[in-house]
Amino acid sequence: MIGAEYIAEFLARVGSDRVFLLTGGACAFMIDAVGRHPELSYTCFQHEQSAAMAADAVWRTGRKVGVSMATSGPGATNLITGIACSYFDSIPSLHITGQVNQREGSAYHGANVRQSGFQETKIVDMVRPITKYAVMVRSGEELRQELAKAYSIAVSGRMGPVLIDVPMDIQQIEIVGEMLLPPFVPPADEDVFDAVCALGATLSAARRPIVLWGGGIGLAGVQAEVAHWLEQAKVPFVSSWAGLTYFDHDHPGFLGQIGVYGNRGANFVLQNADTVIVLGSRLDNRQRSGNARNFAIGATVHVVDVDEEELKKYVNDGYRTSQVDFRLLPKVLAALPPASPDPEWSNYAGEMKQQYYGRETSTSAARLNSLSPYDVVRRINASIADDAIVIGDTGAALCWLHQAFKVKDHMLFTAGGNSPMGYALPAAIGAKLTAPNRQIVSYNGDGGFQLNLQELQTVKSRNLDIAIVIMNNGSYGIIKQFQDSYLGSRYDASRDGYSAPDFGLIAQAYGLEYMRVEHLEQITPALFQGKAIIIDVVLSENTLIEPKLEMGRPINDQFPYLDAAAYAEGNKFVDYERPARLKDLVRSSS
Amino acid sequence: MIGAEYIAEFLARVGSDRVFLLTGGACAFMIDAVGRHPELSYTCFQHEQSAAMAADAVWRTGRKVGVSMATSGPGATNLITGIACSYFDSIPSLHITGQVNQREGSAYHGANVRQSGFQETKIVDMVRPITKYAVMVRSGEELRQELAKAYSIAVSGRMGPVLIDVPMDIQQIEIVGEMLLPPFVPPADEDVFDAVCALGATLSAARRPIVLWGGGIGLAGVQAEVAHWLEQAKVPFVSSWAGLTYFDHDHPGFLGQIGVYGNRGANFVLQNADTVIVLGSRLDNRQRSGNARNFAIGATVHVVDVDEEELKKYVNDGYRTSQVDFRLLPKVLAALPPASPDPEWSNYAGEMKQQYYGRETSTSAARLNSLSPYDVVRRINASIADDAIVIGDTGAALCWLHQAFKVKDHMLFTAGGNSPMGYALPAAIGAKLTAPNRQIVSYNGDGGFQLNLQELQTVKSRNLDIAIVIMNNGSYGIIKQFQDSYLGSRYDASRDGYSAPDFGLIAQAYGLEYMRVEHLEQITPALFQGKAIIIDVVLSENTLIEPKLEMGRPINDQFPYLDAAAYAEGNKFVDYERPARLKDLVRSSS
Repeated sequence: MIGAEYIAEFLARVGSDRVFLLTGGACAFMIDAVGRHPELSYTCFQHEQSAAMAADAVWRTGRKVGVSMATSGPGATNLITGIACSYFDSIPSLHITGQVNQREGSAYHGANVRQSGFQETKIVDMVRPITKYAVMVRSGEELRQELAKAYSIAVSGRMGPVLIDVPMDIQQIEIVGEMLLPPFVPPADEDVFDAVCALGATLSAARRPIVLWGGGIGLAGVQAEVAHWLEQAKVPFVSSWAGLTYFDHDHPGFLGQIGVYGNRGANFVLQNADTVIVLGSRLDNRQRSGNARNFAIGATVHVVDVDEEELKKYVNDGYRTSQVDFRLLPKVLAALPPASPDPEWSNYAGEMKQQYYGRETSTSAARLNSLSPYDVVRRINASIADDAIVIGDTGAALCWLHQAFKVKDHMLFTAGGNSPMGYALPAAIGAKLTAPNRQIVSYNGDGGFQLNLQELQTVKSRNLDIAIVIMNNGSYGIIKQFQDSYLGSRYDASRDGYSAPDFGLIAQAYGLEYMRVEHLEQITPALFQGKAIIIDVVLSENTLIEPKLEMGRPINDQFPYLDAAAYAEGNKFVDYERPARLKDLVRSSS
Repeated sequence: MIGAEYIAEFLARVGSDRVFLLTGGACAFMIDAVGRHPELSYTCFQHEQSAAMAADAVWRTGRKVGVSMATSGPGATNLITGIACSYFDSIPSLHITGQVNQREGSAYHGANVRQSGFQETKIVDMVRPITKYAVMVRSGEELRQELAKAYSIAVSGRMGPVLIDVPMDIQQIEIVGEMLLPPFVPPADEDVFDAVCALGATLSAARRPIVLWGGGIGLAGVQAEVAHWLEQAKVPFVSSWAGLTYFDHDHPGFLGQIGVYGNRGANFVLQNADTVIVLGSRLDNRQRSGNARNFAIGATVHVVDVDEEELKKYVNDGYRTSQVDFRLLPKVLAALPPASPDPEWSNYAGEMKQQYYGRETSTSAARLNSLSPYDVVRRINASIADDAIVIGDTGAALCWLHQAFKVKDHMLFTAGGNSPMGYALPAAIGAKLTAPNRQIVSYNGDGGFQLNLQELQTVKSRNLDIAIVIMNNGSYGIIKQFQDSYLGSRYDASRDGYSAPDFGLIAQAYGLEYMRVEHLEQITPALFQGKAIIIDVVLSENTLIEPKLEMGRPINDQFPYLDAAAYAEGNKFVDYERPARLKDLVRSSS
């Protein structure tokens, strides 16, 4: 068995049986071995970036480690943006690159040249900041050891992507010895006593507690237990975007998603809590705002996370922290004392939910007499199956989606930390290939959609029934809104100089169905059933994200600004000073 | 003047007045400043990768430093493959990325987290292996110093790309002090005495000398002086691919391009020389073959290069080396003694040229009764202006181009070292914007063209008259040929699983003209004049690259294999042992 065959056999054994790739000279032996392996199949993408993004979506969809394969040089560097999607969102994925023969490599010559072999590139050094582990293997023995090690690293602790760089000579070398499979890595510390005591103390003292549900809960697969505990404990909870996909939004304790684009009610309750328990969320700047000191002022914040480094970062915030492998989180929660929120707090939380949850409206669309993106999202939500998989791209479109979509048995995901334009199409392909029997919705803006539209060829050639929604506002809307706030509504490169093709003609070119949506009623269940289609939703160029936080304010004081009475009502327990100058509600652009 | 305005003013002062970009939150202040600057203009691309590739093409076309600008995270990482094009080919280019506010960055918190600010990514660490210099600026003063320093590094010595990462707070900070412009860097050593002596000794002893013309000659802008010296010295010369663009191929001393895909005659003469003088070429593996010991056996090889590291790598080859800043090369050549090649050598070189130069033919196309790619290239060559700019993509199409195209006043370039699929369209856009009055031909294969086809929107929206040739063999032809040789003609992922759209419908979708070429006569000068057009050249799937070297052989023994008499005639002076097993001339695929 040569190295290439060993890799193929390894993939089959660990169940990563579908490889996403684009071929090239330096990976040809590996692809040949994949092609010859009876248990493996592969899908050709039209750009390696898409192969890596699709591999990222495999785990999100099916809890199997996705695999991309690419050639050296540009093949490998084209993977990078996709790999970063996995890294920042803690998604395990395996990326295998071909490298030039070692005797052709620059290391062999002992001189520090830019490149020796054709398309030789130091991909391992380049991806180190965005992988949990990356290594070039220099012998058959290293291939055996490193493949098992890398895979194990990807799926253990705080998960993430890994990369193995395989020189052509190692692809062809005869492998001696048995297959080494990745060792199972148990939690570093099975003892949860410290965490139970610390969290118990926090919870016992809480009169106005709230839980922030983070993506880490679902990554560890313990969402059912946590949802059950929240219902029993009667502690209200809010969610990060990464967390939204892991529970039924009809959960009685759920108040909405928080942050810069958060639900007003959810933001109010969080900001008025005396205790915030954060379960598996890294509290990035889109949650706490750019100024973390405005977050939950006066509350005890207690963060539970698997990653020690994420906990260290709160040293100046005065947060309490507990490091827990989330596979053990149910055990921790089961051992906690009962919570005893004040009845007044529970009532207030209920009122905020009543008043704000599910009520996002577009005042800009109303003024412009155009389609409200929130109505569109809700209409899509109602038109698709309860277990459809919806994948968001980025920008304004992504905000609208997370603000208005309600999860039942759906999956709702995006590459939140990296948030590249062009993720939602290749990820939808990865999802469809992983879960062929579920409805897949790739949900995009017109700007972001263009970056990987070459993958429409993959959709067509593989005959994948994916519904591709384009929220078409003819611009990079989120940048325009930023320019409204801080750059005098000068729309350089967001509208001026920006352009997009006619997506109807694009659909025609690739042989896909097309629907131009100008009225809500055109969005029907039939659109999402059994076919590849581009659903081009016509929005006004000046449709805003509402609500949205502007710089320097706490997350409970978003644009469009509430009047003083509503603001006071929301801040029932904590006094948030309000910066004096309020921006105009009506923008020059709208 | 704030940081963003300082950057814009700097670009105007150094003459890099056209910025290629895609906007985003973290670069919005810089783009606003570019937009407001009266001497700058910008072009919006549909993927940052294309912006970086187009910036690379600016210097190749107009000897001005091209500039790309992108946002943090995926914006920055999307530049990488384009930046690598500049690095491996020694092209100066400047890439400016936005970064998150420093107080939102992970460094601020002192913990080693994956990401702190939204879309925060350690781009400087990631691009270090593919840039001459990369730095994040942390203050206004650093911005002043580093911008000048980076620009200067890019254009001096062995040139290359640089990257400056600018946090949002530095974009907005008030800059104190005058504009710092890049210092002119003189050659490290003005004294060429050593080089003259060493080269003079090599040349004086040469009976069968040949010069290998490398890209470094043109990068330094001394091609006229070198061409003149070659004519005077009556030393025959061959060229690397990177060198081909810098001289008139009617030069009497020119014998053709060499290497794995080299002209047979040029390869024979080089391999039979007793002295090879290499001027500004790094002798990569596509020139010497994978086994450098098969290169110019028995010859004294003397390499002249600006980069000390490139010279160090020959320590095991026993080559002579001279380090020279190529701005001083004319001074070196002028001081050399006259060369005195044997008349027999000159006659032999002439015979080889007579027999092989300009005679590439496609035996595979002839057998298949399909278009010969060599005829197509020659027909294009004859149909375009003598000063047209032709940009090759990669793969088989690129080989055919370099094998058959003759340069008059043309420019002929590609990103040779990195050689990514999808280079030729964005580079053509960069070239057109730099040299609007010249004909531009973007020359692609059907596989590579797909990777950045979203830029057809840029072509259309900017109304750029670019002729886009697609050598359409419905597969990754160069990989198929590799599979023919080494993988039993199993066409996994090169033909099987590969697909491409109907380029006529793609042209229609983007509102461009289209011509499907099935006969040579359809290629006429009118196609290349004053319009954007896709010229879709229909080739057989089984069209081969001929000649092409297979593994383990010297470059003068290419497939299809010459008979013993012709082989002996070519190797008139040096005895090259011929590996016993010859591959079949007719492949299973053809």
